[in-house]
Amino acid sequence: MRVLEVPLPGRNYRIHVGTRLLPTLGRECTQLELGQRCAVISDTQVAPRYAEATLDSLRSAGFEPVLVRVPSGERAKNLEVVARCYDRLAAHRLERRSFIVALGGGVVGDLAGFVAASYLRGIPFVQLPTTLLAQVDSSVGGKVGVNLKAGKNLVGAFHQPKLVLCDLDTLSTLPPREYRAGLAEVIKYGIIDDARLFRRLEKSMEKLLEKDPHELEPVVARCCEIKAAVVLEDEKETGRRAILNFGHTIGHGIEASVGYGRYRHGEAISIGQVAAAKLSVALAGLTASESDRIRHLFERAGLPVALRLSERQFKELTAAMRLDKKVTAGSVRFVLSPKLGQAIWGQEVPEELIRASLGLSTGT
Amino acid sequence: MRVLEVPLPGRNYRIHVGTRLLPTLGRECTQLELGQRCAVISDTQVAPRYAEATLDSLRSAGFEPVLVRVPSGERAKNLEVVARCYDRLAAHRLERRSFIVALGGGVVGDLAGFVAASYLRGIPFVQLPTTLLAQVDSSVGGKVGVNLKAGKNLVGAFHQPKLVLCDLDTLSTLPPREYRAGLAEVIKYGIIDDARLFRRLEKSMEKLLEKDPHELEPVVARCCEIKAAVVLEDEKETGRRAILNFGHTIGHGIEASVGYGRYRHGEAISIGQVAAAKLSVALAGLTASESDRIRHLFERAGLPVALRLSERQFKELTAAMRLDKKVTAGSVRFVLSPKLGQAIWGQEVPEELIRASLGLSTGT
Repeated sequence: MRVLEVPLPGRNYRIHVGTRLLPTLGRECTQLELGQRCAVISDTQVAPRYAEATLDSLRSAGFEPVLVRVPSGERAKNLEVVARCYDRLAAHRLERRSFIVALGGGVVGDLAGFVAASYLRGIPFVQLPTTLLAQVDSSVGGKVGVNLKAGKNLVGAFHQPKLVLCDLDTLSTLPPREYRAGLAEVIKYGIIDDARLFRRLEKSMEKLLEKDPHELEPVVARCCEIKAAVVLEDEKETGRRAILNFGHTIGHGIEASVGYGRYRHGEAISIGQVAAAKLSVALAGLTASESDRIRHLFERAGLPVALRLSERQFKELTAAMRLDKKVTAGSVRFVLSPKLGQAIWGQEVPEELIRASLGLSTGT
Repeated sequence: MRVLEVPLPGRNYRIHVGTRLLPTLGRECTQLELGQRCAVISDTQVAPRYAEATLDSLRSAGFEPVLVRVPSGERAKNLEVVARCYDRLAAHRLERRSFIVALGGGVVGDLAGFVAASYLRGIPFVQLPTTLLAQVDSSVGGKVGVNLKAGKNLVGAFHQPKLVLCDLDTLSTLPPREYRAGLAEVIKYGIIDDARLFRRLEKSMEKLLEKDPHELEPVVARCCEIKAAVVLEDEKETGRRAILNFGHTIGHGIEASVGYGRYRHGEAISIGQVAAAKLSVALAGLTASESDRIRHLFERAGLPVALRLSERQFKELTAAMRLDKKVTAGSVRFVLSPKLGQAIWGQEVPEELIRASLGLSTGT
């Protein structure tokens, strides 16, 4: 097991990465000065597999957990489900020192985290991410929230967890497509911050696809480390934290428009990152061969690297992009990579280049 | 005009108290480094009176405001109305630097503040409180939120405003009952923190009831000053901020049960404060004559000081009290006053004494 410390002042917490961590949850929670009552929020996919073990671990450490089941999938990340969670917490009389355990993927973590951030103006929460995507990305950093019809994550908060347990065993039951979607974020860390990690992934992609825990543990821990370091520098995303959105501007646009329900988040940002790499060649100095290596690595991870768009769909996509939170003063800004392992943010990109990066003809 | 500075680190803001302040809104906002687009959230009572002037002031300073009207009254402070506000903000493409102006009483301030706290994970907001209650209490301190069916303010956030303008002119159109309800919080500051203020109120209650601005300005400013000082010491209510809840434990219980829709907040906490004064005599050393002065001052302000409860209603009230956020480890804690101008918090009170303080017989 690897333990990372995230030393946010007054809100420091630990991330554990390893196998057989779920049974340690209760014991770990006893060290966090929490109340007895707690709620485990999980979805209908994950709860049947891991809820009992989670509740058992909490109970045997003296806590009084209640299970709150929510629908699974991105569509469940909405205000109605949040409202139902509040009602369950109130019915079970959770108090200010009570806490929430988010047991599931990124959707559950974001949703349960927002419930924790806003119930009684904020109660503690613990992340138990069960997908690769959630382990390397959404469970670390304190961004929580839900979607509106108008766009993804338009409502939310910054609310740091008290503890994150990345139990690699929970990845064993993850469907291959979901697992690969998580690799899209793993590769991202290599591109934006760590060329050595990128080379390691080029070497070990096969082992990673087999979920080899000896390869997974250092890779997942390194991703969490990078994310935590970026968040430490810029918790509220006023500057450098934006680099975590490499590939996400187009990715979110895809998810919010043409790809809604068709692509998983990891798949949409895989396409987005390959497009962002092309934009980086055109505007930031990335070499064509680096851009090719990026595309190739996503392909080897079994991820989509392009999509076919009609003119109308492209318009929908760019309209959705403009609604993204990262928009400032009406202009969409991109994260680009000048070379592997580095990223710059706040870059304006002409629409013609976006068209080209997505393979559309640029003629009038 | 009086200007108070609230020096919360990184989130300092000013409170202006005086007449003719509404027309200064736009000019003041230009000094806050905000985006151009903004939303004025107001209710169907206040908007017809003050929305145009507010929008005009913003427009003439170069902002692009949109008016979002919400229903009036405590019942509108719910998640459905919050969701409708989000949709309006998204439709008008408010961005991270866009801001919200809360124009109205405490309900609008709490609701609009929570919308601002959670939309795009938090955007700036400005308070323009138009009731006495909102001016001396809810607009200062950053507590925002909405009600659940299970209880008041069970969902919310701590989100500090960028500016508070307490325009005393807006009180001229306030119905007498609402105005008197605000006096309940004014008197509270005297009881919990400032015996001199309490004596001043004993002397000037008539002038205050006439809304004399020469008396109102120093009194409102002093209340804001006390509130801001308490908040500065303990923003997240882990300790001393609890004294602001003097009379609120029973008051919230009344609002959430037998008094729902029957009493205004100020009326419920007037009854609650008179009961808390009696409890303070029994448990904290307040003299009977101080308790009488407290009751008398609330009476002179035209506020209810008692309510008649059946046995069943008392049970409902205590059940509602136990759901209050201030509950820790299942036990209801009270704020008591050992002498005028002082308060202690976290006090356990036997149920028999609560019964007695509300005038119920204590026999079995």
